[in-house]
Amino acid sequence: VGELELIEAIERVLERRGERVVRWVGDDAAVVRARPFAVTSIDTLADGVHFELSTHAPADVGWKALATALSDLAAMGAEAGEAYVSLALPGELGAERALELVRGMEELAAETGVTVGGGDVVASPALVVSVAATGWAESEDELVGRDGARPGDLVGVTGEVGGSAAGLLLLRGDTRAELSVDEREALLLRHRRPRPRLAAGRLLAAAGARAMIDLSDGLATDARHVARRSGAELIVRLADLPLAAGVDQVALAAGRDPRELAATGGDDYELLVCFAPERREAAEQTARQAGTALTWVGEVRGGQGLVLEGATEELSGWEHR
Amino acid sequence: VGELELIEAIERVLERRGERVVRWVGDDAAVVRARPFAVTSIDTLADGVHFELSTHAPADVGWKALATALSDLAAMGAEAGEAYVSLALPGELGAERALELVRGMEELAAETGVTVGGGDVVASPALVVSVAATGWAESEDELVGRDGARPGDLVGVTGEVGGSAAGLLLLRGDTRAELSVDEREALLLRHRRPRPRLAAGRLLAAAGARAMIDLSDGLATDARHVARRSGAELIVRLADLPLAAGVDQVALAAGRDPRELAATGGDDYELLVCFAPERREAAEQTARQAGTALTWVGEVRGGQGLVLEGATEELSGWEHR
Repeated sequence: VGELELIEAIERVLERRGERVVRWVGDDAAVVRARPFAVTSIDTLADGVHFELSTHAPADVGWKALATALSDLAAMGAEAGEAYVSLALPGELGAERALELVRGMEELAAETGVTVGGGDVVASPALVVSVAATGWAESEDELVGRDGARPGDLVGVTGEVGGSAAGLLLLRGDTRAELSVDEREALLLRHRRPRPRLAAGRLLAAAGARAMIDLSDGLATDARHVARRSGAELIVRLADLPLAAGVDQVALAAGRDPRELAATGGDDYELLVCFAPERREAAEQTARQAGTALTWVGEVRGGQGLVLEGATEELSGWEHR
Repeated sequence: VGELELIEAIERVLERRGERVVRWVGDDAAVVRARPFAVTSIDTLADGVHFELSTHAPADVGWKALATALSDLAAMGAEAGEAYVSLALPGELGAERALELVRGMEELAAETGVTVGGGDVVASPALVVSVAATGWAESEDELVGRDGARPGDLVGVTGEVGGSAAGLLLLRGDTRAELSVDEREALLLRHRRPRPRLAAGRLLAAAGARAMIDLSDGLATDARHVARRSGAELIVRLADLPLAAGVDQVALAAGRDPRELAATGGDDYELLVCFAPERREAAEQTARQAGTALTWVGEVRGGQGLVLEGATEELSGWEHR
């Protein structure tokens, strides 16, 4: 199958959602009716680094590539809009698996109301998938950065963490944990099909979140970003992290500390969010409205950097590379 | 150098241009004050496919990756705005060469008034650079697609073609053409540092262009896209192609037909544009205003596909893969 045939097959998989997209795939560029503020993030997954085709179906790779980019929009409180996709494909992947990848991406696009507005398909020595996602906001005030955390703020985490890292240990056969079928499946799904917290991001931003970031590199790294950009110190109590069911068993059976696994494993795509203490209950209620829970795991202080209470010395100095 | 240090070094290379970019690198996503229509394209270059690090300096790769994406905005008639960059970097490239790549990209960004608004840096088995570029327009009417060519229209090409392909032959040592130093340098520059026709694209769109596309894959492929999307037949006379100085000698010394090289070589980043015949002089004048020339190379007819007058049979059936 030639490049043009593959592009045409891809175009048949994609669907245009809503009235916003004026010109779509098949032109030099997509044209979209804008709202006042555009929020854009680009994210990339590479074979052997962010996934392995031996353990990840192409559809999972496509899903995850879009999830990663959308998760950044969630962390800003933006409404997801369009995605633009670059597929750098090694010849040995073949057209059918490339199409499966796009189908997986399109599944998440459908679930989140996103239109894949355009893309580029090129030959490459290795499978590398980049997604640039654009979201929209009516005003600057709707959006939340990493830089607004203030001493006295509470630090919360949506949903559950550690599930993706535990799922990866299971996928790789690196653990002999005895789990129920359901628990095992839930952890695998968590790793293969992460769901960006788009609704929670928008609602938490509207509820007065002062700083927000998605947990993609792992809390130990991402909380540090918030601390640095806010010029403040974040204290996070590892004991308070809301671990997904089964993380304890999987980590222990692999000789890992469960809370350290959760803090460094990444790929959970939950949100870490800072609120003024008087917004505590409003924030909790908002998270429930968005179909998740907010767990308070720490505070913001004057100072600089991140303190992980209950961490080994190694983890305290840990930084994602 | 770790990933975070590299990202910080990259952020120091980049410059924010204009008032439009509200939140920039260093957050989950960039935030940009929008205009009514967003025009977005994503393009990717992979090592060994679109360039070779043995013949291309990292700065040239960075320049070209941005040029490729901006050229699509030019072909829509959009005003260039922001770029979002994904760098998939093999370990052996090293941080210094990765920074050179970004510096080359930033040179073109400065020249075109573009802000590199954000990016992603990941490890990868191979060097793959993706750029998503967003441009802006006040109304849909300002923009031109590939689909508006009508029977009777004239087909024109801006500037000169074949220079990039000839430059690549020189770079690879595949030709023994005897050129003046200036001619040689001009062809090499043409390949290494292509300039997207942003001003010409905007002005030609305003002057009533009915269809436009940039010559990235080569005229033999790109004119076919216009024909297909417009539901019309394009006739292009190879003899009328405006060849860059030195293309004749370089091609002949490499045993290639100069006009076929120009039609298939790609990477010229000139614009192919269709105008109603009564706009002929206005279009020529507009191109001159934009600092280039428009050469009429063919017409649009009822029918389908592309006819390359003066082409070998092989070229007539040629399609870029």
